[in-house]
Amino acid sequence: MAQNSPHDLPDVQGLSIAVLGGTGDQGRGLARRFALAGHEVILGSRSEERARAAAAEFGADLPVRGLDNEAAAAAGDVVVVAVPWDGHRELLESLRGVLAGKIVVDCVNPLGFDKQGAFALPVEEGSAAQQAAAVLPESRVVGAFHHISAVVLLDPEVAEVDLDVLVLGDDRASTDTVRALAARIPGVRGIYGGRLRNAHQVEALTANLISVNRRYKAHAGIRITDI
Amino acid sequence: MAQNSPHDLPDVQGLSIAVLGGTGDQGRGLARRFALAGHEVILGSRSEERARAAAAEFGADLPVRGLDNEAAAAAGDVVVVAVPWDGHRELLESLRGVLAGKIVVDCVNPLGFDKQGAFALPVEEGSAAQQAAAVLPESRVVGAFHHISAVVLLDPEVAEVDLDVLVLGDDRASTDTVRALAARIPGVRGIYGGRLRNAHQVEALTANLISVNRRYKAHAGIRITDI
Repeated sequence: MAQNSPHDLPDVQGLSIAVLGGTGDQGRGLARRFALAGHEVILGSRSEERARAAAAEFGADLPVRGLDNEAAAAAGDVVVVAVPWDGHRELLESLRGVLAGKIVVDCVNPLGFDKQGAFALPVEEGSAAQQAAAVLPESRVVGAFHHISAVVLLDPEVAEVDLDVLVLGDDRASTDTVRALAARIPGVRGIYGGRLRNAHQVEALTANLISVNRRYKAHAGIRITDI
Repeated sequence: MAQNSPHDLPDVQGLSIAVLGGTGDQGRGLARRFALAGHEVILGSRSEERARAAAAEFGADLPVRGLDNEAAAAAGDVVVVAVPWDGHRELLESLRGVLAGKIVVDCVNPLGFDKQGAFALPVEEGSAAQQAAAVLPESRVVGAFHHISAVVLLDPEVAEVDLDVLVLGDDRASTDTVRALAARIPGVRGIYGGRLRNAHQVEALTANLISVNRRYKAHAGIRITDI
């Protein structure tokens, strides 16, 4: 069947997208690109006031509004988790009910930093995405958008973003939806990257890209070759 | 200084390369490409006889010979470790003396396989490359060549290999040498990818590329963008 081809993607045009941690750089960057693609975007924050202020900065032309995290999670067809690793588990636990049945896209990278740069933190469940899946048994958890630079997403000079988004998950329909959402960002392909049990190394690879950025003065991403 | 630019690489033309585990697919693939680039290559194997037989298969036109692992390690200016993960530590322990002072390039991916595909194995030292560094304190250990498909390396139809090799290590001169060796394979760039403490995720990402290969019927690799 055509929908089983890895290159055919569902139509996601009408989906609204909530971004938890939507006042941070990564959250605002993704929000901006999804809004530019025509999606209704709801920024979530612990403080509704800050969420509203961050949404207002996008201007009246972009369909972005701000709510507290719980109301944002309730409002989005798809919910992107872009919060700091510190507090990740607690936030998701507090939203278990409202996130039930939804696609939850985790893009959190559990990293530490010291004088030598970034390094991957150990995660009891294996990865941030697996922690989300453990905390949210009734949600469909997908890992994606780990390597995409907030600086690039927020840069009005960057029309096309030169990287592939690896999309990880155990449910085919959910990963296909998120692959289609990734492709809403010009230049980006959403590539299936494996099951959640293989999410750790995708999250942790962000530490390597930070090393690349330092050495080469770049905003590095990855492309998958031969597909 | 020019040699500090990330794009300037040392001249590695005259270096001989030993490949331990040189009778396996990955080892033979790398050996073939290095020999095509004009390097003297020494295949190492537990059995000198099998090493000689594998070397003979390359034909008289390519400068490849076979020795037992210890003699191969002694003969190579640079030593590539392409053995199975099972037995990795024991082999390196047995070669500690002969590998002292040399650049040792570990390209081993500690992976397990089950019905759902490949997954990363836990490694006490963090990664195969870190295990090599722990076992070989007098060697200069570099991690590289994790994602390059043996099928592609061995395919006479593939003139250019479409991927970047991430090169990891704690010693700049060694990673630069290995970056230059990677670039001896047409199409390949050798990109500095961080310190050894960030090697695990690069090794483990091979599991994701195997998932990509299954889904997309490909021999996937990665390219680093914006550099």
